[in-house]
Amino acid sequence: MEIAQLQPLVRTVPDFPKPGIQFRDITTLIGHGEGLASTIDHLAGRAEAMGAKAIAGMEARGFIFGAAVAVQLKLPFILIRKPGKLPVETIGVEYELEYGTDRLELDPLSVNDGENVVIVDDLIATGGTAEAAITLLRQAGAKVDNALFVIDLPDLGGAARLSRLNVAVTALMDFEGD
Amino acid sequence: MEIAQLQPLVRTVPDFPKPGIQFRDITTLIGHGEGLASTIDHLAGRAEAMGAKAIAGMEARGFIFGAAVAVQLKLPFILIRKPGKLPVETIGVEYELEYGTDRLELDPLSVNDGENVVIVDDLIATGGTAEAAITLLRQAGAKVDNALFVIDLPDLGGAARLSRLNVAVTALMDFEGD
Repeated sequence: MEIAQLQPLVRTVPDFPKPGIQFRDITTLIGHGEGLASTIDHLAGRAEAMGAKAIAGMEARGFIFGAAVAVQLKLPFILIRKPGKLPVETIGVEYELEYGTDRLELDPLSVNDGENVVIVDDLIATGGTAEAAITLLRQAGAKVDNALFVIDLPDLGGAARLSRLNVAVTALMDFEGD
Repeated sequence: MEIAQLQPLVRTVPDFPKPGIQFRDITTLIGHGEGLASTIDHLAGRAEAMGAKAIAGMEARGFIFGAAVAVQLKLPFILIRKPGKLPVETIGVEYELEYGTDRLELDPLSVNDGENVVIVDDLIATGGTAEAAITLLRQAGAKVDNALFVIDLPDLGGAARLSRLNVAVTALMDFEGD
């Protein structure tokens, strides 16, 4: 399927999680067999063109897209997890949310030094989570030049934020006016 | 790769999360490109033989395996999530953990009535989470006859528990003595 046919499979939920926000809900795309497979094809083609040697994904929705892209390209999948989930010694980074902070963790042994790692996630908004993931992966020795998303909400400035870290953002589709 | 070659890619972490427990850590298998792709091939072959019309996966590690199997078979992927994550009206079920309770939620619109849904997860131990997922999927109208795992810990009785719900457990590999 073409990307123009995939975009209408994303459901818009008005006023979630709070009044005035249009929530772009990707679960309806995930629930469409042909649509999901085609989304992964598009992502995998772009990750391959970026020369990815491993794919990294953030818990939890990033696992859906990241792992499937890794499988399609027969690449390792690197897990970036919420605190306390990995059973080994981890490195971690705190990052700011709208209210309070959150933390991501990584097993540094899951990253090979100098390896070209492409981050895959469902959606980029302000880019805070992606920035934290990039920081962690680089701390573990990865080369991170690209982050790949199904959806970009360009009005929220995530791509600009990552470009200041020298990471290029690629998204299959944009929703403007969010 | 053969399953006998995949099993050594699972790392055993002693005394996690508490003394005496041998934690079977699948993140090392996920971090092996060929091993991960081959694991998904084996799972997808079995799900196809079960006549799966949709795949369901539980947050978070179940997303890794379930979504990739769904992509390979071009089937819908149904998300079973932790509380408050889905932006729509959900149905939910509480289930017992060793300490306290947890809750899983599902968008009932993501399930078609009478559809043969196969659950995919990384590991079955006591089967509590899988039982909750089966309850939810059936409540939403799904036909659930099979649950598919990478790892079974047969000493913990999960397969016996699910068989009382008329759900057959298939696992690629067993670790006995856990």
